[in-house]
Amino acid sequence: MSQEPPTTVLPAQGLHGSLADPLMEVMNFLNEVTSRYPEAISFGPGRPYEGLFEVEQIGDYLTAYQRYLTEERGCSPDQVRTLLFQYGRTNGQIHELVARALRNDEGITAAPESLVVTVGAQEGMFLVLRALFADPADVLLVSSPCYVGITGAARLLDIETVHVPEGPEGCDPDVLRRTVAELRAAGKRPRAFYVVPDFSNPTGTCLPVAGRRRLLAAADAEDLLVLEDNPYGFFTPTGSGLPTLKALDDRQRVIYLGSFAKTCFPGARVGYVIADQQVQAPDGSRTLLADELSKIKGMVTVNTPALSQAVIGGMLVSHDYRLREANKPAADFYQSNLRILLDNLDRLLPRDRREAAGISWNSPAGGFFLTLNLPVPADNALLEESAREHGVIWTPMSYFYPEGDGGRHQMRLSLSYLTPDQVAEGARRLAGLLERSCG
Amino acid sequence: MSQEPPTTVLPAQGLHGSLADPLMEVMNFLNEVTSRYPEAISFGPGRPYEGLFEVEQIGDYLTAYQRYLTEERGCSPDQVRTLLFQYGRTNGQIHELVARALRNDEGITAAPESLVVTVGAQEGMFLVLRALFADPADVLLVSSPCYVGITGAARLLDIETVHVPEGPEGCDPDVLRRTVAELRAAGKRPRAFYVVPDFSNPTGTCLPVAGRRRLLAAADAEDLLVLEDNPYGFFTPTGSGLPTLKALDDRQRVIYLGSFAKTCFPGARVGYVIADQQVQAPDGSRTLLADELSKIKGMVTVNTPALSQAVIGGMLVSHDYRLREANKPAADFYQSNLRILLDNLDRLLPRDRREAAGISWNSPAGGFFLTLNLPVPADNALLEESAREHGVIWTPMSYFYPEGDGGRHQMRLSLSYLTPDQVAEGARRLAGLLERSCG
Repeated sequence: MSQEPPTTVLPAQGLHGSLADPLMEVMNFLNEVTSRYPEAISFGPGRPYEGLFEVEQIGDYLTAYQRYLTEERGCSPDQVRTLLFQYGRTNGQIHELVARALRNDEGITAAPESLVVTVGAQEGMFLVLRALFADPADVLLVSSPCYVGITGAARLLDIETVHVPEGPEGCDPDVLRRTVAELRAAGKRPRAFYVVPDFSNPTGTCLPVAGRRRLLAAADAEDLLVLEDNPYGFFTPTGSGLPTLKALDDRQRVIYLGSFAKTCFPGARVGYVIADQQVQAPDGSRTLLADELSKIKGMVTVNTPALSQAVIGGMLVSHDYRLREANKPAADFYQSNLRILLDNLDRLLPRDRREAAGISWNSPAGGFFLTLNLPVPADNALLEESAREHGVIWTPMSYFYPEGDGGRHQMRLSLSYLTPDQVAEGARRLAGLLERSCG
Repeated sequence: MSQEPPTTVLPAQGLHGSLADPLMEVMNFLNEVTSRYPEAISFGPGRPYEGLFEVEQIGDYLTAYQRYLTEERGCSPDQVRTLLFQYGRTNGQIHELVARALRNDEGITAAPESLVVTVGAQEGMFLVLRALFADPADVLLVSSPCYVGITGAARLLDIETVHVPEGPEGCDPDVLRRTVAELRAAGKRPRAFYVVPDFSNPTGTCLPVAGRRRLLAAADAEDLLVLEDNPYGFFTPTGSGLPTLKALDDRQRVIYLGSFAKTCFPGARVGYVIADQQVQAPDGSRTLLADELSKIKGMVTVNTPALSQAVIGGMLVSHDYRLREANKPAADFYQSNLRILLDNLDRLLPRDRREAAGISWNSPAGGFFLTLNLPVPADNALLEESAREHGVIWTPMSYFYPEGDGGRHQMRLSLSYLTPDQVAEGARRLAGLLERSCG
């Protein structure tokens, strides 16, 4: 009888600790939950709506980028070929185009050299964390509940994360300052505070302008950097967007994490970091933090794929470096979905009925998400029942409190990935679940 | 008078230690050295030759991939759109195509689920190191001199690296075993050994088949994983390639790092890892190492850009999953450059003259690189003089010994990025430098 050759079996205990952390699987769940119940309507994934993508546009954008290289940059055909096919500048080749769009869309004046073009905002987070965190005493503060990508990246690097609870209007700078003081008293070094000021993932909350100014003042007073992540800022009623922290930041307190996943498309995997802080060596010489990030990026992905940069660059060129305007149809679509969801929930579960049942939700002015509070645990058991019996999926908010025990009675509802009809039907199914479970 | 607002200055000493390591800048140097002396002929960068790329092909490959999705996979237009534009499977969408090509080209039988499609082989290295290295006592062994991408990635994760010196025929399994024994005696845990068996970057050496078998036996005896990096294996005289370690590996000792940067093109930034090892949890349940890498990848880049995967997937489909055949023109080109370089050096510096002067070089059968030994230091001062006075650039071998002091009298010559005429003229200039400096 033939015998199986001995195989290599690695004990899981010998692998990096992050792999045993349930936190690390949340992202996979979010990406793949839709496939688990193909018939259910899913308020789960925070993906952009696909109906606005057209396959033919990829070629058009590639062409637009080549025309830009040829006509505006004066590149020869050989130089264009090099830029599209070869290894390239570590910090990216479309940094000037991104800087123009930032000026038009956000009123952010960023020198192109202070930009790092990354493989999605996720790589940006990773590079920033690796650069800033050096010592076991260094602590990352996060506005909580919190996007799992930042806590997951911190976990990969064995960085301690401390959660700063949000209120209904987002993070509270006073709570932040108190937390910093406590950490310092315990011998820790709080380095940075991660926050999504615009329509936070997962809660949908938005930090008012006064809160933004107070947050910047707190960061300055506490010598703290702010990591501002802004994937959803464009998705508001026209003209109603608030200034980003970075636009208000006149002291380089803010490291800005930008993403084209929602404003262009996720499959390109292009994001960027604005890292305009000065870094001073012991000999007094200075560099930009962006240049330090470049050293790290060279050892993680070498450079962001030229193809992806070319397509996103072509989109920026084609839309005259104004993505906010180009995203008006998408913003209108998400606004309409938000309205449909809120109106249907309100109609199906009128105020007196839902108040009696202990059900409530917030009403964000924009973005992809809202928070629904219920009197029973919004856990995996209820999710399973919801998908099986009612054909509707959502995300337990507890997934966004991986190190605490918050959000037990909350759902995150995402409205970005569904058609208007699906949103309406999903609201009906959700109301059915709520009537049954909380009635 | 207006005053500058106070700016944020970060002391470099507070940042991660890797940023102060000169090692971290070597990669940038390699990527950007060509631009420093635009008139010089550069044997510096290990980039593939660009003359074989055609911009129009990008669209053809995208079309070929869409046709594959539609005809072979039965995808609807909406599904094709999702695959091209949306977030995707963390470990990639072209894993089945890559597995087919591996079977045809390398005789490697890898289950598609054991593959992780990465943002270049560099991300693959990073993911593998993060998964395997958990404890400060864990040590990475590297065949030395060594590609800086692996030592740089290790530095980012504070992983101790120990160099195992190569001989003229590559790594010596006996030296490896002695080093492992010494490390164990010192209380360390050697986890893995990194090696480029085929035409190593930087030296050009190739490990013979007998050495490969002995290396696998050593890994088995020492319970060590082997990280096999193979970017150059196709670039041999037709039919003369040696079996990879992975093809010889019947016990899953080898984690294989694959790259499409040289066999397709670098701008796609697509590589892959074969991680078919079993991981066993304390409760006895098992997963594939590839699934563990997926958790890490989700927190580094989320997934490899769909666009890049589509173009590389289209190339695989178009070439009937046989990249070795498709690379015959490239292999012939590099073989010819290698011949031209060796013949010209031999003609310009005949054996008796070079022996008297203490100059020699190796004669690899393939790949992108060769090693030139000289009696004087091949340092930055000589490089500067070489570029300025002789119009020729090369890489000091000492760059590939970042933690030791080897290679001081050696150059790495790369022949991949030049035309045949440039190689011949470069050899003439190099001979001029050598005559002058070593005469």
